[in-house]
Amino acid sequence: MKAVVVTGYDGFIGRHVCRVALEHGTPVVGIGRASQSADPHAAQPARVVEEAITLRAIERATDGIEPIAIIHCAGTGTVGRAADSPFTEFERSVGATATLLEFARTRLQAAPRVVLASSAAVYGETSTTPATESLPCAPISAYGFHKAMTEQLCQCYAQQFNMPVTVVRLFSVYGPGLRKQLPWDAMSRLRRGDRHFHCTGNELRDWLYVRDAAQLLWRAATLEQAPWEILNSSGQRATTRDMLRTLSRSAGMSEEPTFSGVSQPSNPMTLIGSSARAEQTLGWRPTITLEAGLFEFATWCGRVMAAS
Amino acid sequence: MKAVVVTGYDGFIGRHVCRVALEHGTPVVGIGRASQSADPHAAQPARVVEEAITLRAIERATDGIEPIAIIHCAGTGTVGRAADSPFTEFERSVGATATLLEFARTRLQAAPRVVLASSAAVYGETSTTPATESLPCAPISAYGFHKAMTEQLCQCYAQQFNMPVTVVRLFSVYGPGLRKQLPWDAMSRLRRGDRHFHCTGNELRDWLYVRDAAQLLWRAATLEQAPWEILNSSGQRATTRDMLRTLSRSAGMSEEPTFSGVSQPSNPMTLIGSSARAEQTLGWRPTITLEAGLFEFATWCGRVMAAS
Repeated sequence: MKAVVVTGYDGFIGRHVCRVALEHGTPVVGIGRASQSADPHAAQPARVVEEAITLRAIERATDGIEPIAIIHCAGTGTVGRAADSPFTEFERSVGATATLLEFARTRLQAAPRVVLASSAAVYGETSTTPATESLPCAPISAYGFHKAMTEQLCQCYAQQFNMPVTVVRLFSVYGPGLRKQLPWDAMSRLRRGDRHFHCTGNELRDWLYVRDAAQLLWRAATLEQAPWEILNSSGQRATTRDMLRTLSRSAGMSEEPTFSGVSQPSNPMTLIGSSARAEQTLGWRPTITLEAGLFEFATWCGRVMAAS
Repeated sequence: MKAVVVTGYDGFIGRHVCRVALEHGTPVVGIGRASQSADPHAAQPARVVEEAITLRAIERATDGIEPIAIIHCAGTGTVGRAADSPFTEFERSVGATATLLEFARTRLQAAPRVVLASSAAVYGETSTTPATESLPCAPISAYGFHKAMTEQLCQCYAQQFNMPVTVVRLFSVYGPGLRKQLPWDAMSRLRRGDRHFHCTGNELRDWLYVRDAAQLLWRAATLEQAPWEILNSSGQRATTRDMLRTLSRSAGMSEEPTFSGVSQPSNPMTLIGSSARAEQTLGWRPTITLEAGLFEFATWCGRVMAAS
């Protein structure tokens, strides 16, 4: 059976990638820890190995399977956890990527394309000019350093062992299923009546709806492109203030959020990018406006937060 | 007891670092696999743990010890091995460095300075202008990628967890004890009467005598400097042709080496650097001329090659 392998299949982005793959009629093999939160609407992979990304787990998952691509979404995706447990997160992030790439190099007849879900955190602080992929990496968090190292591993295997690898640098991804990071924390706060946020409100981000992110990862895995490629995946630009304002209105709240005015280390003031290369290479563009996306997210939050 | 911890203590560079430390009256604790080649003149560490760099091995080595610094010399140091076994070498190089840094962060009351013996291979191909430390890394070998990742780990721990770390980018280190790489292979060939080499001969390198390299690693570990620093450690510039000519004359051979004229991938044409920052920061300069160093090396080679 031909299938696409999705690591972190039960995570926030992984679930949306599984759904997109199945909509395209491609069976999915999932590897990774099962999420603690069930999603009755989650797409069902043809096979699942609920384990950390070890060579044994990947072998079990792909036994009798011909992988057409590997979409590597495993990882915590939170800056805080990498800061608290840098070694554990290094192993889960960088170590797991090394294992996956070595598997693809040595255990398969023809190495399928590996797509890495990386992060704009590799840039660190961008200027007001949107980052392009050629900008040097200068991370300002352990999470960003780990992502930069996973990218270097990908580049090493692509350039030294002729493997097709695409790195997708996701900017601020949000949408139904996100149970961490600012949008989720903000919804929890807002529902408690707490409108005060510990940041300046002026942080500028590229907000990307998760389904758009999943579409790009899918295209990167399945469409023709250069053997080695790095692609930004940015979305719609907005300050934290504007995003939270739209979010609270989507949740039916009329009062404005307020801000401490203090910026946090590891939290860049500006993190925006250009997706021109992804558009040029794969014809990908984000399709969901921030307003529509936040409305979907707020609706989903309302449902799951009321149920818990 | 206060001691300096040397990983890879029984390797080519590690042995010279141990000797320099003991000459300064500082006890050494050595960790790492024992070398297969005995050296009756090797300095004896106060304690040795003959194991790979695991948390358990480092804990055993430092039990009851107050490390004043950790000089991290472990690693194969060969481009070929990283190309043949990228995963194993990733674990020995990047994985071991992660373990060491995490140990220093979490298990010691005050994190001592960690000095990483890195490599000019992180630069990839340099231009005819000597590389300075601010040049972006662009490795062209798996070995260079691994070294770049170990540097990123060091930068992550230095900048995110306020640990004092110095990265020393060693250029082409040679001298007594080197049983790999071009100088050793060349001596083996020359002694067999084979004067023909598979390269252009025009490759430009910065040749650094191993004792000078060990002196810089020692100074980086013990002298006052910025919490986070990268220092080039270059030596005396010469083409492969000139180096081999001097080497063969040092071994008493009068015939000139010849070259295939074909350059090898993973083998940059130019890899030269400026050590101005190391001189400015630590007052370090190489002291041994290429001629004197190659004479020492050829003499040592003559002895060990005749004995084997």
